[in-house]
Amino acid sequence: MRKEVTVDCPATVANLVCGFDILGMALQDPCDRITMRLREEPGIVINHTDGYDLPTEPAKNVAGAALLDMLQAIPEPVGFEVEITKNIKPGSGLGSSAASSAGAVVAANQLLGNRFSKNDLVRFAMAGEKLASGVKHADNIAPCIMGGVTLIRSIFPLDIVALKAPPMFVTVVHPQIEVRTSDARQILRKEVLLKNAIRQWGNIAGLVAGLLQEDYDLIGRSLEDVIIEPVRSILIPGFDEVKSGSREAGALGGGISGSGPSIFMLSKTHETALAVEKLMADIYLRIGIDYKTYVTTLRQEAL
Amino acid sequence: MRKEVTVDCPATVANLVCGFDILGMALQDPCDRITMRLREEPGIVINHTDGYDLPTEPAKNVAGAALLDMLQAIPEPVGFEVEITKNIKPGSGLGSSAASSAGAVVAANQLLGNRFSKNDLVRFAMAGEKLASGVKHADNIAPCIMGGVTLIRSIFPLDIVALKAPPMFVTVVHPQIEVRTSDARQILRKEVLLKNAIRQWGNIAGLVAGLLQEDYDLIGRSLEDVIIEPVRSILIPGFDEVKSGSREAGALGGGISGSGPSIFMLSKTHETALAVEKLMADIYLRIGIDYKTYVTTLRQEAL
Repeated sequence: MRKEVTVDCPATVANLVCGFDILGMALQDPCDRITMRLREEPGIVINHTDGYDLPTEPAKNVAGAALLDMLQAIPEPVGFEVEITKNIKPGSGLGSSAASSAGAVVAANQLLGNRFSKNDLVRFAMAGEKLASGVKHADNIAPCIMGGVTLIRSIFPLDIVALKAPPMFVTVVHPQIEVRTSDARQILRKEVLLKNAIRQWGNIAGLVAGLLQEDYDLIGRSLEDVIIEPVRSILIPGFDEVKSGSREAGALGGGISGSGPSIFMLSKTHETALAVEKLMADIYLRIGIDYKTYVTTLRQEAL
Repeated sequence: MRKEVTVDCPATVANLVCGFDILGMALQDPCDRITMRLREEPGIVINHTDGYDLPTEPAKNVAGAALLDMLQAIPEPVGFEVEITKNIKPGSGLGSSAASSAGAVVAANQLLGNRFSKNDLVRFAMAGEKLASGVKHADNIAPCIMGGVTLIRSIFPLDIVALKAPPMFVTVVHPQIEVRTSDARQILRKEVLLKNAIRQWGNIAGLVAGLLQEDYDLIGRSLEDVIIEPVRSILIPGFDEVKSGSREAGALGGGISGSGPSIFMLSKTHETALAVEKLMADIYLRIGIDYKTYVTTLRQEAL
């Protein structure tokens, strides 16, 4: 049994435009790095090597919260020493908390001889999401651990479905403004019009069919959100311009990553993904908001 | 060019439980039969050989309304003589009006040398649905014309996606009570809870993934409707008993066919489908409501 493991846990895009709370996808880049060692004595010790000034007390750290949940399922006394280097900025909408939570339980599971199933690991890691946002959701956790595109058909009981997806390039822009997940959730209405819900489920069905049938045009047509995006996009300066410009530049489509403020766009070719990056950079330079961009791909591999 | 054609146009199951207004599936049986002849002079003449006493004036007959819509897209003067033998009882929830509308335009298109696309034919046939229920919907029309399972991603613009589906047996019971489509629509609330909408789109995504990945268990788990069924099933005596009994008998799941009152159940084997039929018959015999049952299969072929 190994005494130390290192995992690179990827950023994820939750919701995928029309699939609010049910769909998510893993990115090849950026990744957090987690190195974990078994300790002689029980308990969890967390060190951050990044400059984000995150709490290191286990119960207040998302990786710690996930590990504490995991420890409850382990009969023998176990201790972990965790070193976290975050490259996914907290609050970016790119699944930063999920990467820490998921990476921690995956690393710990490797140290324990892989005794837990992927579904178990998702359950433990959700304790980190609960700490981060107040809600146990799995739409970042599941793709982070399983790779590819995942469907959370149901949270209670947990029913995760891996969806085969064709290769895709992903361009992300992270405008450096703050949108808190809890705020982004509170501005949503508790009721939606049935006719909008119907349009939304047509798009979700279309997106799933497009992914599984490798129909890029159908994926593009289905990347439409008539319920969440009209409300949340108001919090993100430049959103409409990025979206319409990216489509004109040849992107299949895209929208808010998770609860924002990052915006992601899917493309069929690297060339288009680079053109979209240029366009995003131009828009935020002109608006005068600091930003960071990524050109990456859908990550197919599990953690 | 042929002077006479006969088409057998199948019954269809709209909604498929969680896919209200967007999903539908064709059945092998029952079918209406439509025989159509080109007339020397323009105009439409309709004869019904069944006993349903349906109107034969073209503008008041669903097949006639569909043909009148089609005629507007034909520059030359054309006339049709239509003979309709309905085996799908009007008001059964099995797409009776769609079978007549779809069958008529498909037959007419064959007589005209197949000049129209399937999408055109769906558009014409929707004029029949508009007459029947007041709403232009395509979730019976599309599977009737295209076979298999179809997704109506969007009505305006019309975007129909054929979904590959594995072989399935279908048991249908039609309790002989009247549920008008317009009534079944009016009792629906105009707003739904966001949390229910999210659960619904998880199930829709699961159903589409289950069909395309040929995962019968996932299909079964996804056949859940938390929005429409709780309201509409109240109109159908015996519904809860049929549903729970069918699951116990091994059916994958099922629910209201279209707006009812027919109930359909999907099964993996013929044996299960027959057991479900027996159970349905027992329930309606005991309740004392006349009924008709069908044991059939998903129809894969286009019309």
